Amino acid sequence: MALLNSLVNGEVVSEISITDRGLNYGDGLFETILLVNQQVIFWEQHYQRLLTGCDVLAIQCPTESYLKENINKLVQLTADVTPAIIKIIVTRGNSERGYYCTENTAPNVIISLSTYPGYLMDYWNSGINVKSCNTPLSSQPRLAGIKHLNRLEQVIARQEWQDEYQEGIMSDMVGNIIEGVMSNIFIVKQGGVTTPLVDNAGVNGVMRNIILKLCEAHGIMAIKDKISYQALKEADEVFFTNSIIGIWPVREIDWQFDSQTCLPGPVTKKIMQILTEEHSIDYATFGL
Amino acid sequence: MALLNSLVNGEVVSEISITDRGLNYGDGLFETILLVNQQVIFWEQHYQRLLTGCDVLAIQCPTESYLKENINKLVQLTADVTPAIIKIIVTRGNSERGYYCTENTAPNVIISLSTYPGYLMDYWNSGINVKSCNTPLSSQPRLAGIKHLNRLEQVIARQEWQDEYQEGIMSDMVGNIIEGVMSNIFIVKQGGVTTPLVDNAGVNGVMRNIILKLCEAHGIMAIKDKISYQALKEADEVFFTNSIIGIWPVREIDWQFDSQTCLPGPVTKKIMQILTEEHSIDYATFGL
Repeated sequence: MALLNSLVNGEVVSEISITDRGLNYGDGLFETILLVNQQVIFWEQHYQRLLTGCDVLAIQCPTESYLKENINKLVQLTADVTPAIIKIIVTRGNSERGYYCTENTAPNVIISLSTYPGYLMDYWNSGINVKSCNTPLSSQPRLAGIKHLNRLEQVIARQEWQDEYQEGIMSDMVGNIIEGVMSNIFIVKQGGVTTPLVDNAGVNGVMRNIILKLCEAHGIMAIKDKISYQALKEADEVFFTNSIIGIWPVREIDWQFDSQTCLPGPVTKKIMQILTEEHSIDYATFGL
Repeated sequence: MALLNSLVNGEVVSEISITDRGLNYGDGLFETILLVNQQVIFWEQHYQRLLTGCDVLAIQCPTESYLKENINKLVQLTADVTPAIIKIIVTRGNSERGYYCTENTAPNVIISLSTYPGYLMDYWNSGINVKSCNTPLSSQPRLAGIKHLNRLEQVIARQEWQDEYQEGIMSDMVGNIIEGVMSNIFIVKQGGVTTPLVDNAGVNGVMRNIILKLCEAHGIMAIKDKISYQALKEADEVFFTNSIIGIWPVREIDWQFDSQTCLPGPVTKKIMQILTEEHSIDYATFGL
């Protein structure tokens, strides 16, 4: 996950002003994007979510051509690394102290390129061990769905384990399953898949939507709905998704007082195969 | 509110690494402290809250002597400005991409000195106009009370007005009054004062606790309790507090469909007098 190169507002630097509102208030958005053979994967979907987030927060979104140009510049600086991770941070920009900020503030755009994380290739094939997190997600319809920079809930949830698990399950205050700490969750029941609504909490993941569309196109029933603790416990299969990992099937969930064995099942495997083939991305070969 | 000088980890610079976790996740805390005649006001209380916040987030808190030494350095660079604002940001430090971070990461400590905000002196004497904000506060007991860097709710609440109000009232999702956008709120009823609990949302303000103690010492009944919308509407007097403004009495609250006239009342004025005299700080003279 080492940072290899970065651009701040188009310059090859790795520092930002301490008056930046991303630092002071988490006043901004980010996207984490897979780069394979110098190709940005699912660019259109990432840019659309960034646009939506900027709209919600009333931040000036950089143009698509500006971002593409800068990503190309960064990729050329780091041409031999594949797969890799592009992270874009867009903050509201620099301002004086205080929550108020004038509407015409120029955003700060930070684009960085890092090595692929040290995940094991085995996670794709054999599945992962998952912890049910004690840290709940708060509900905030005004900020749900977008990938903003207020991520303390994820930070403290991730503190609940070291390396004995590969992901954690987060629920809202009333026990609805919402997402993984760094991913979205899907459950499989009777051949159909369900992923939680992200209207009150959670991130509207790019890979989540890719999977929903692929299922629809291939005759697998896929819906967005509330998922209770009980529904997850009774699921036939469970898997996590994000732009970097693609899909990780769940092998076992640690529920603190008991555990649930899932094993990567046939529906999950079918969706993994469809994802790999339709988009010609071989997630199984990423990682160590 | 112009930034005059800053120190990052003891160096006179004004930039920070883009790998800082405050920028990436809002993974840190801050304190905003009044400086009068080169004296840091209520230092002990600010440092105690910072310690509490670092404890909650498991961030290594800088020692008191380290912070004092750096603040002194900053004050010497800017000796002729009074009153002024010291802002301390402590983040978990720099890390690789991802929510996980090793426990022994060195924090980043950013200390800045800014001019006093452009508030009118008249706010202290004549009171302020206040908006009831539409943006609700989410409930998160794990993060309530501490002054962390996840402040998007305050940012979007502050977007609800330009300069027609001086503060906004924020409530939780079920209508309990919690705080001002940048301050704590107190209501006065039958000679006693009440300020909302901050166990589920809100910041445990330094000035809030100063006021509670002053009231206790001077025989004014002061409690922390739930405050409903109705209780606020029926209050005799309303005031806001923070470390920078001291106390602002409320003149009028805009409730969208009607408005509530409060006028600075006798109990508020009494507490303002006690605050000024006991701590020898003449808040009435700050601002324009």
